[in-house]
Amino acid sequence: MTAAIYAGRQKMNTLLITKDFGGQIGKKAVYIENYPGFEKITGVDLIKNFLTQVKTTEIEILTAEVTKIKKEEEGFVVLTNDKRNYKAISVIVASGSDPRPLEAKGEKEFLGKGLSYCALCDGPLFKDKEVAIAGGGNAAFETVRFLLNYIKKIYILEFGSKVCADQTNQEIVRQSGKVEIITNAAVKEIKGDNFVSAIVYEDTRTKEQKELKVGGVFVEIGYHPATAFVKELVDFTDKDEIQVEPESMATKTEGLFAAGDCNSGKYKQIVTAAGEGAKAALAAYGYIEDLKYKK
Amino acid sequence: MTAAIYAGRQKMNTLLITKDFGGQIGKKAVYIENYPGFEKITGVDLIKNFLTQVKTTEIEILTAEVTKIKKEEEGFVVLTNDKRNYKAISVIVASGSDPRPLEAKGEKEFLGKGLSYCALCDGPLFKDKEVAIAGGGNAAFETVRFLLNYIKKIYILEFGSKVCADQTNQEIVRQSGKVEIITNAAVKEIKGDNFVSAIVYEDTRTKEQKELKVGGVFVEIGYHPATAFVKELVDFTDKDEIQVEPESMATKTEGLFAAGDCNSGKYKQIVTAAGEGAKAALAAYGYIEDLKYKK
Repeated sequence: MTAAIYAGRQKMNTLLITKDFGGQIGKKAVYIENYPGFEKITGVDLIKNFLTQVKTTEIEILTAEVTKIKKEEEGFVVLTNDKRNYKAISVIVASGSDPRPLEAKGEKEFLGKGLSYCALCDGPLFKDKEVAIAGGGNAAFETVRFLLNYIKKIYILEFGSKVCADQTNQEIVRQSGKVEIITNAAVKEIKGDNFVSAIVYEDTRTKEQKELKVGGVFVEIGYHPATAFVKELVDFTDKDEIQVEPESMATKTEGLFAAGDCNSGKYKQIVTAAGEGAKAALAAYGYIEDLKYKK
Repeated sequence: MTAAIYAGRQKMNTLLITKDFGGQIGKKAVYIENYPGFEKITGVDLIKNFLTQVKTTEIEILTAEVTKIKKEEEGFVVLTNDKRNYKAISVIVASGSDPRPLEAKGEKEFLGKGLSYCALCDGPLFKDKEVAIAGGGNAAFETVRFLLNYIKKIYILEFGSKVCADQTNQEIVRQSGKVEIITNAAVKEIKGDNFVSAIVYEDTRTKEQKELKVGGVFVEIGYHPATAFVKELVDFTDKDEIQVEPESMATKTEGLFAAGDCNSGKYKQIVTAAGEGAKAALAAYGYIEDLKYKK
């Protein structure tokens, strides 16, 4: 959306194609406190602000999913799931990333029946239950902070030997007295009848399997960049991120830029993604201006 | 301030040293419309929001000017104009840039007597006068947009063969019907008795000198990075910007980072500076964590 704001203000003829607005941020369970300008704001409200601002420009918005981007002699063709295609001189990919699945037994079976990838959506259903969170990063700890409001006991199951959420998140969670952190825990199975009733994990040091009685499981083990549709035009990192030049967000294909969580940038924050969106739009503007002079 | 918010949230023992908050942004003459999250906000209000957020963390704030940064065997010493010095393991320079002087005859003489580097501060004094703006970039056009509210005629004097403000700014200014844009104009002299009464420029193509009767001159020809105090520890670009690795904002001196307008980044925007501040703080955090493991 920052790329769109900048492209719009540059009066570029711009089409913004998205299946939804906000992505991860729209689904965040706690207040955002680290986006500069807002001491505390919900993800939903921040995205609403961004969208209002996008709409002050004259760019067009299309609700659709991009399925492929092709390079043509002059520019690009963008294909969407509604079987249409759009020509562009330059393309900015800002497709973010999707939650990574646990790949444990019972995960698909219990999705929506006690297993969730979205605490904000489903959290309130678990009032006064005991739940487990798979994951030990910021996303996991933020989920815990949100759930602390109405859940009596929370287990954090971290695969590695230590959790890696930021210090503020760790302190708040520890001070609650309601959270037990279990490290070296590889989740193996989600169990239950119609609804989740237990989670099974293996202690990766002893190989011993253990079972916790829980009424819910939240999966917060990170995200996978949504980049498959552009695979042939870019280089990928080993995490399927789009390799970019970090100054201009340029990919290896001229005229194609990638900003935010979908790219190879090390730091994945709301404000870093916004900064990159602005850089990508200004770089795309420069690219198109240069083309005019070449003709 | 974004670097401070991030450093604070990471519970790093942080001292923020600044002579003022906001720098260029605090002096902006028109609403900011391109910082994502705010459709329209004054620079003063945006900075107030940032500062409120900085103060939610536990970092310490010191009002002083940094005069020099020295490298020691372990970390850095930061010297200030109050003759004190502070030790740090890592330093983030986010010192922005200062307005560039015109270097024309009479410039120093008429400063505060009709010549200004800050339309927001001084603009209202020029009600119903004719004024000249030296410069043809976004800063110049934004100054014009602000002055349009109460000034009857404005000349834009651009040194180059065309103005380079963004399209939105150019359109608004052109539609006003109050602005005359003069390109290829090298400002030579500011004239007057006690107060500015005329500006003299040379047409760079014909070498002819011309004089415009004006009651005020605003200088908006760009900024010079405030980087002299760190010169010996970094590489400079030809514009005296601090050369950084654009992913982590690292300089050539380990543990020293530079974010925002003071660095070599191509795009100088509020949101890009904020994104870079976050990256620099997270990189500094990683640097200090790595040092712990080495010990």
